[in-house]
Amino acid sequence: MRTRRAILEAAADVFDERGFQAATIGEVLSRAGVTKGALYFHFPSKQALAQGVLDEQFRYGGMTPRASKLQEVVDMGLGLAYRMRHDPMVSASARLSLEAQMVEVFGTGYTSAWVTVTEQLFREAKGQGELLPHVDPAESAWVFSAAWTGVQIYSQQLSGREDLEVRISSLFTHLLPSIAVPAVLSRLEFGPERGFQVAEEGRQLAAAAEAAAEAADVVKASA
Amino acid sequence: MRTRRAILEAAADVFDERGFQAATIGEVLSRAGVTKGALYFHFPSKQALAQGVLDEQFRYGGMTPRASKLQEVVDMGLGLAYRMRHDPMVSASARLSLEAQMVEVFGTGYTSAWVTVTEQLFREAKGQGELLPHVDPAESAWVFSAAWTGVQIYSQQLSGREDLEVRISSLFTHLLPSIAVPAVLSRLEFGPERGFQVAEEGRQLAAAAEAAAEAADVVKASA
Repeated sequence: MRTRRAILEAAADVFDERGFQAATIGEVLSRAGVTKGALYFHFPSKQALAQGVLDEQFRYGGMTPRASKLQEVVDMGLGLAYRMRHDPMVSASARLSLEAQMVEVFGTGYTSAWVTVTEQLFREAKGQGELLPHVDPAESAWVFSAAWTGVQIYSQQLSGREDLEVRISSLFTHLLPSIAVPAVLSRLEFGPERGFQVAEEGRQLAAAAEAAAEAADVVKASA
Repeated sequence: MRTRRAILEAAADVFDERGFQAATIGEVLSRAGVTKGALYFHFPSKQALAQGVLDEQFRYGGMTPRASKLQEVVDMGLGLAYRMRHDPMVSASARLSLEAQMVEVFGTGYTSAWVTVTEQLFREAKGQGELLPHVDPAESAWVFSAAWTGVQIYSQQLSGREDLEVRISSLFTHLLPSIAVPAVLSRLEFGPERGFQVAEEGRQLAAAAEAAAEAADVVKASA
């Protein structure tokens, strides 16, 4: 699993810098420091490597469930913004998802998956009275997801993603008043610093889960 | 001028289908039905052709000024959505603007120009009391422009732009309540059918301007 992870991380770096077309397996090999055999064992083609990187965007590293499902949507958006600036796996996924050629190769499943995840949270939010009565969860999920992507692209082009969390926070400031019940809106936290907090919380949760799994292995081995 | 236009339209078709890298001057030549000499007279390189197509995105074909500057922002967004589905010059511009390689070649001037145009309209809107007191025209212009682009990308990926005006209309439904004074908001027209109306009005204005210019030429020639 560690070899697989090292290969994926090297592939993410290369895809992030060069895009799919210009990336070569040779460069992934030399950055990962693994043998050709090991790489092909895990990923039989450049396409399989890209697929592996793309799949990683949906690992939140243990997002904490919140009582407010709108807060969960906000946390997903701001947490991903933070990780996009600090984790090549996430930024490489974004670059790959937006390449015209990639849509031909992999379809649009990654794009619609973001809408689906958001829609599910909006449905739960509506079920517990967080959304205004006129809100259609599917429609709002589409708009939120698409707008998030547009902000990511503008921030990348205009500031090298320096201002990404500030802009995503501003996006939520513009979007949330049209869907949230006022009493919920006033309690939501969507300042730019929320991105780091959420990502850090996720990292700690993932580390704790890993430590627990290792401890369980030790217990099993000694039993 | 007609030759130049024919070349640009052929180039737009080719860029729209293949992107910058895969497009060839040979294919533009054969579609435009002009001589190599004529093409190179107007556009000395593939880069100059792309630049010509990119510049076209800012020709609105005579946008009508409105008493409400917020209505002008809406009309720009919905009119462009309509034209993006019916004018390869506009959709080719969008494809070119978003290619990673193009940013290296042309910089980010086209992206920031959209923010600047929108910001100017928001400033005027604020000056005449259309915006809520807390609204920062620069910040809102950035978010509106970026979100518009994200919606365009999602619509292209998920429906081949079939639903673009419906989604842009939905975007405005989500964004406008957070910036518009209620009395202005209730009078804004931002249904999806507005895109066609605005584009048609622009087309008629442009045709009238052209007819007037031709009439003036006739008068001059006979004088």
